[in-house]
Amino acid sequence: MKITEIVITPIAMKDPPLRNIQGVHQPYALRSILQVKTDEGLTGLGETYGDLAVLTKLRQIAPRLAGLDPFDLNGLERIITETLGSAAGLATHGLVGEASDEKTLATVLSAFEIPCWDLQGKALGRPLVELLGGKVRDAVPYSGYLFFKPATHNPAPDYEPDSWGEAMDASGIVAQARRMVSEYGFKSLKLKGGVLPAFEEVEVILALREAFPDHPLRLDPNAGWTVDTSIAVGRKLDGVLEYLEDPTATIDGMAAVAREVSMPLATNMAVTAFSHLPPSIRVDAVQVILSDHHFWGGLRRSRELAAICRTFGIGLSMHSNSHLGISLAAMTHLAGATPELTYDCDTHYPYLVEDVVVPGVLNFTDGAVKVPAGPGLGVELDLDSLARLGEQYEKCGFDTRDDVTPMRAIQPDWDPVIPRW
Amino acid sequence: MKITEIVITPIAMKDPPLRNIQGVHQPYALRSILQVKTDEGLTGLGETYGDLAVLTKLRQIAPRLAGLDPFDLNGLERIITETLGSAAGLATHGLVGEASDEKTLATVLSAFEIPCWDLQGKALGRPLVELLGGKVRDAVPYSGYLFFKPATHNPAPDYEPDSWGEAMDASGIVAQARRMVSEYGFKSLKLKGGVLPAFEEVEVILALREAFPDHPLRLDPNAGWTVDTSIAVGRKLDGVLEYLEDPTATIDGMAAVAREVSMPLATNMAVTAFSHLPPSIRVDAVQVILSDHHFWGGLRRSRELAAICRTFGIGLSMHSNSHLGISLAAMTHLAGATPELTYDCDTHYPYLVEDVVVPGVLNFTDGAVKVPAGPGLGVELDLDSLARLGEQYEKCGFDTRDDVTPMRAIQPDWDPVIPRW
Repeated sequence: MKITEIVITPIAMKDPPLRNIQGVHQPYALRSILQVKTDEGLTGLGETYGDLAVLTKLRQIAPRLAGLDPFDLNGLERIITETLGSAAGLATHGLVGEASDEKTLATVLSAFEIPCWDLQGKALGRPLVELLGGKVRDAVPYSGYLFFKPATHNPAPDYEPDSWGEAMDASGIVAQARRMVSEYGFKSLKLKGGVLPAFEEVEVILALREAFPDHPLRLDPNAGWTVDTSIAVGRKLDGVLEYLEDPTATIDGMAAVAREVSMPLATNMAVTAFSHLPPSIRVDAVQVILSDHHFWGGLRRSRELAAICRTFGIGLSMHSNSHLGISLAAMTHLAGATPELTYDCDTHYPYLVEDVVVPGVLNFTDGAVKVPAGPGLGVELDLDSLARLGEQYEKCGFDTRDDVTPMRAIQPDWDPVIPRW
Repeated sequence: MKITEIVITPIAMKDPPLRNIQGVHQPYALRSILQVKTDEGLTGLGETYGDLAVLTKLRQIAPRLAGLDPFDLNGLERIITETLGSAAGLATHGLVGEASDEKTLATVLSAFEIPCWDLQGKALGRPLVELLGGKVRDAVPYSGYLFFKPATHNPAPDYEPDSWGEAMDASGIVAQARRMVSEYGFKSLKLKGGVLPAFEEVEVILALREAFPDHPLRLDPNAGWTVDTSIAVGRKLDGVLEYLEDPTATIDGMAAVAREVSMPLATNMAVTAFSHLPPSIRVDAVQVILSDHHFWGGLRRSRELAAICRTFGIGLSMHSNSHLGISLAAMTHLAGATPELTYDCDTHYPYLVEDVVVPGVLNFTDGAVKVPAGPGLGVELDLDSLARLGEQYEKCGFDTRDDVTPMRAIQPDWDPVIPRW
């Protein structure tokens, strides 16, 4: 089996005005959709970031993969490494830690690795989870992801506002959580913080605790706080949080907080590449790592990360960006085959109103997504939807994620500096 | 594809009287050969230790695997873990570190995992190396493994003495090395030490260095030395050894030596399970780990070990026990797909005079074995040879490896205490 052609389609999908430390989501989130075709007539699907810098690198690699066997993941990595060489790292949107050559290579590798896995599964007639060692759970539990948000984008785009409404205080977040739990059945809740002053977010968490006494709760201010604020919040929420995620920046900062608070600290900002693991482990900076196959280098590397977490007694959860069904399928197969996963995964999927995969496979029951049973990823591309979202990309007016500019339309003096509190 | 039947055949193969810190090899080395059969008519091959304690556990597990899909490696591990539970760890022969429940589970898992991989490859019509991510090298380099040895066993068994003759001093070892290099083409040489007093072995290494100025050299006394002796030897061999392997026992002992010598320290005794990695890394006890899929838990776990070595800047080599072609094939596929392997692998294969696989696939050229190209492991079981070696097992008079008793036939007051020097 040989790769013959790779089609890369940037798409824009409608996205609610979700707030975070950087600002607010744009009216559209960008993704790249990959179709990797083979001489046997199979097509492997992939999904990754849609930012122009990523897209450019994907387009640089794609033609070099012609002739590659989709089983040859070592060959894939070799081609990518040789092609990108010591290319400067991709810039990031500031929510997943520093950029580096290592992360750039891992991001590009992952983009092509997932379609190769999909092809392997399709060639074998087996779901991807079986190629990853077999199911350790039939369904993968996700957490309900809560966001502060205004009711609409500003300026309003040419589509109807999302159905979630405003949530800028405790009652709004509790209402959002009630809908997440009733519609999707989530058994745990995560609040994206870093939006209100730290102790106002503490009050929101306490309101969630009161409304959902049995749901594990998480708070993630995306490194918006100083070490001192992080410690103060951690002490205030002693016994309340399942974990506190990225309260402050850097491995040293997290370690300083970890020494003083009772709950585990989780991260998808301080430890985001293999080279971060030794220094983090040395000082016990984080007790939970949120893996993300999109920037950790794909499914093989994610399994390696899981093994390192198991070996060093570090918990494992999973990070999410705004994503479509192809990514959700990959996340679900990976988590379905990963015994080391000790926490419900993150997902933005409930905020999605349009997808590129044929519906019906990826449903939430009791907060969990059943591992797809079809060959490979088990999802099918809807070419009409892909074309429509591709047109949306062409018309959306931007090619790079930017949470700062739309925030300045709301608050002209906005400065996304961290730590803020 | 479902497992229907597992045939486990203990075998005894002729083995030369190779010396080590424990004593001397018995006239036969014991192995267990596994045939895992499926409802699709395929048979997966495996090879592991032949000691009765291992064999008993294999026989305990085998019937519970009926119905298992050979792709379901997580299911395999679950069944083994549930069946063995907190069973006491297997005893070991003292050359691969302490026994533990963790290592027992890993050993049993590996025994069945290899045949599952072989079945996967056979079902796909692909060599195992392709299922492990694809070839990173066409042939796997091994080192020439040198042993002190008498000319014959004592008492002599009922077969002709081996062709290697006596090697109990520098000239004998250099002659053995010359034959290893001329017949097999090895590009590096390892001396099994712990037989002569430490500084006599230093002289043997210096003689090898003179005879083979360009071959990387290794010395492995199997933890036969004190920390002080290890440091003294290490300083004496500064610039001479590629690595010094297990000069002394325990992680703390190795760390004490590592702080004082220039060459990397390697181990297959101090760090032999995942739980040993954190304490070892904390004190930088070892700079090279000799992996061994037989006791690290199979190929998946060995790949995880490789990832940990890569992440923490630890070198990776490969350990060997006396083994047949099935193990050599598995080692070669694994190493063929492992970019992290930075050193030539060990093998006892040149000492083998009878195998259970059909000859022709596993040949040494320039010290390397080409990764087999056939489906799965790429080796075929010779049922006649298996039957003959099985009969040899029944007649050999022992069921457990024991290097001490035959040594006492040579030296009645033999005491395998370590450290000895």
